[in-house]
Amino acid sequence: MAATGVTRVLARYIVESRYEDLPHQVIHEACRAMLNWVGCAVGGSQHETVTMAHAAFAPFFGQPQAQILGRKVRADILNAGLINAISSHVLDFDDSHLSRVHPSAPVLPAALALAEWRKLSGAQLIHAFVLGVEAEIRIAQASFPEHYDRGYHNTGTAGVFGAAVAAGKLLELNEQQMTWALGIAATQSAGLREMFGSMCKSFHPGQAVRSGLSAALMADRGYTSSETGLEGRFGFGNVTAPRFDPAEITSGLGESYSLLQNMYKPFACGLLLHAALDVCLKMRDQHRVAAEQIASIHATVNPRVLESTGIRQPTTGLEGKFSIYHALAAAMVHGAAVEEQFTSPIVRDPRVIALRERVEVAVDPAFNKLECRMRIQMADGTVLDGHVERAIGTLDHPLSDADIERKYRALTAGILTQVASDDLVRVCWHLPNLQDVGLIARLGAA
Amino acid sequence: MAATGVTRVLARYIVESRYEDLPHQVIHEACRAMLNWVGCAVGGSQHETVTMAHAAFAPFFGQPQAQILGRKVRADILNAGLINAISSHVLDFDDSHLSRVHPSAPVLPAALALAEWRKLSGAQLIHAFVLGVEAEIRIAQASFPEHYDRGYHNTGTAGVFGAAVAAGKLLELNEQQMTWALGIAATQSAGLREMFGSMCKSFHPGQAVRSGLSAALMADRGYTSSETGLEGRFGFGNVTAPRFDPAEITSGLGESYSLLQNMYKPFACGLLLHAALDVCLKMRDQHRVAAEQIASIHATVNPRVLESTGIRQPTTGLEGKFSIYHALAAAMVHGAAVEEQFTSPIVRDPRVIALRERVEVAVDPAFNKLECRMRIQMADGTVLDGHVERAIGTLDHPLSDADIERKYRALTAGILTQVASDDLVRVCWHLPNLQDVGLIARLGAA
Repeated sequence: MAATGVTRVLARYIVESRYEDLPHQVIHEACRAMLNWVGCAVGGSQHETVTMAHAAFAPFFGQPQAQILGRKVRADILNAGLINAISSHVLDFDDSHLSRVHPSAPVLPAALALAEWRKLSGAQLIHAFVLGVEAEIRIAQASFPEHYDRGYHNTGTAGVFGAAVAAGKLLELNEQQMTWALGIAATQSAGLREMFGSMCKSFHPGQAVRSGLSAALMADRGYTSSETGLEGRFGFGNVTAPRFDPAEITSGLGESYSLLQNMYKPFACGLLLHAALDVCLKMRDQHRVAAEQIASIHATVNPRVLESTGIRQPTTGLEGKFSIYHALAAAMVHGAAVEEQFTSPIVRDPRVIALRERVEVAVDPAFNKLECRMRIQMADGTVLDGHVERAIGTLDHPLSDADIERKYRALTAGILTQVASDDLVRVCWHLPNLQDVGLIARLGAA
Repeated sequence: MAATGVTRVLARYIVESRYEDLPHQVIHEACRAMLNWVGCAVGGSQHETVTMAHAAFAPFFGQPQAQILGRKVRADILNAGLINAISSHVLDFDDSHLSRVHPSAPVLPAALALAEWRKLSGAQLIHAFVLGVEAEIRIAQASFPEHYDRGYHNTGTAGVFGAAVAAGKLLELNEQQMTWALGIAATQSAGLREMFGSMCKSFHPGQAVRSGLSAALMADRGYTSSETGLEGRFGFGNVTAPRFDPAEITSGLGESYSLLQNMYKPFACGLLLHAALDVCLKMRDQHRVAAEQIASIHATVNPRVLESTGIRQPTTGLEGKFSIYHALAAAMVHGAAVEEQFTSPIVRDPRVIALRERVEVAVDPAFNKLECRMRIQMADGTVLDGHVERAIGTLDHPLSDADIERKYRALTAGILTQVASDDLVRVCWHLPNLQDVGLIARLGAA
């Protein structure tokens, strides 16, 4: 097994990396990702998908080593990590990367559960998380988009490497063990796009967490794998994609950080609605618009936007996510477009329906898909105009720290107490100084 | 979501199948497979691979629901099933099928653990096992050999379906739930041939058991998957192989049983040594040959046999598996060729070495690879001749019930007490009448 193989080179980088090497900007991005992820995990924790997974696995819970977020239950780290991962992905509201990986969902639950169990520090958690994301994104990029196009859900198939690396770093594996951990992860890599639209989509990061944690724990005990799990003839790259460029995995390691390309969704619906919601909420804030004084809303968008979101009279929360009419009305009434605005009660709320009827949408092929122009006619005759050219949440227009905090608060409201929620915000922003990660778990319990 | 999709048709067959439908021959084959599997699992239970996996997962064991065979430990069914699967495959001595799947290793540990926990009967265990094997073999055949050739280890990738089906049958899933269970299995399917030669090979059925059990347990709670997990555009078949023939999965369901094509290895080494060992042990029995009275052994085999097993002076157990000289000498001295004969102490035993030096091997391209001619020259001048044209253990020359029992006894000797071992044999041969499968677990504890 070549000492210069891709798997071993990656393992060596992970093992030799020191926290002190991380640029300040990367550490801050990890805090942003953490706050966004905790919000999603707590916000998703009451979803029926999570309730079913919890019921299925509860009879097998081991010692109470780690917290299940948003619930009053603790479990062994394999099960707690699995369920927290499902929670954090189930709303489709977690972070994303251009390689189509949702970076945090498979990595943070593994790292957090292990760090909580072993009473590790915030800095250790950040370090493990940053390296886990680095591994999963680079491995995904090495065969992007071919691997995804074949039908694999990257968040599962690449995510397992992220979980294994993060856990392996926290366990302080040596180079040999980390090489094995990557191999054991490779041979568990799984997740099919056929599952999109079913509960299994959010199970993919859950399975990645359980498998990735297992990989690191087994390697820690000396359990061996091939040393060429990524690049071997029958390794992950060659088997799961028609193209695999190992240089993507190893070139410039430590010179750049994939986490800096992380994106946070501002709204709990598809990207195509984001521009309309962005301009709508900005105008509402700026002009203190009261929904019941609106005579009409006229929006102009790219034709593809209306094609995908043209449901005129949605009746369920899910249909609401595909109705630009509902989305704008609900956002204008509530001043938000998080998960709550896409639930059936809100879709059927007479106030929202009344405004929805007064929304008109035109299309213009000259508009890009993340662009929207909006004119609001008020009952008193006032006319308000707004325009965004690139919706918030994209790489060139990222959410501010305050935006992420606002999103987090909307997601956790009603599940965490105000005091716990406030404390958790502070803990996330000061994560590098946290002595014991267990505090996150305690505050994140319902 | 075609109601006639392959996944659903398979699910319906499994759900509607009744134990009374099983031919007597199939039930008896299940008993043979069970005895062979228990022997392998107990025999493998002391292997360092199992010890490492046990150490890695022990901190996460839940309630003591199921026995870890060959050890004095019980665990939750997910962990017990995982470890028993590793044990049963680690010696490479378990059963096999022409589709290159080892049928029992991913299915029986899942079914046994669940049946033990739920106090189910031997007939229920048999039924679940037969259906699990049917599903895994048919799914493997649908893209054989293309799926294997791409680099997947079928025992893991198809095995997960077998585990899910067996567990789902024991949980009495309905058609909708069984369809989901197959989908949840599909999206966890994993295992790379790159791992051959490492401990991960035996982890593959272990992971299949944990994932397959999870699939059935989740579906039981209503956790949804795609309903076209096998045949969909991004389903298991299309994603993991260049050719996928869904008709292989559904045609003639219930008319034939894949378990009847099951093969049992008589010797704990590669197939190419089996003919030589077969004729050697037959001659030893028939002529009551005493090793120390042998002047020389002359064997003739196909050239490929000697190419692969030509190590003249092996020094380790593993090298012994690739030495026809050692294999014949050890078999003649011990009257067996199970795992013990391929351990380092036996390879270094002066009695074995002395005889090894008197073994000569010739090659003849006219011989098939499962053929061997042997001439033994005794010290008193007697000459003995023997010949086998197809080694024992192949489909047209299967192990007898007595052969399987002998193999089982060799594997469990020194681990189980004589009394427990005898009882377990009786239980396996009378499995259809067993009221509570827990008895197998109690007898199979060390």
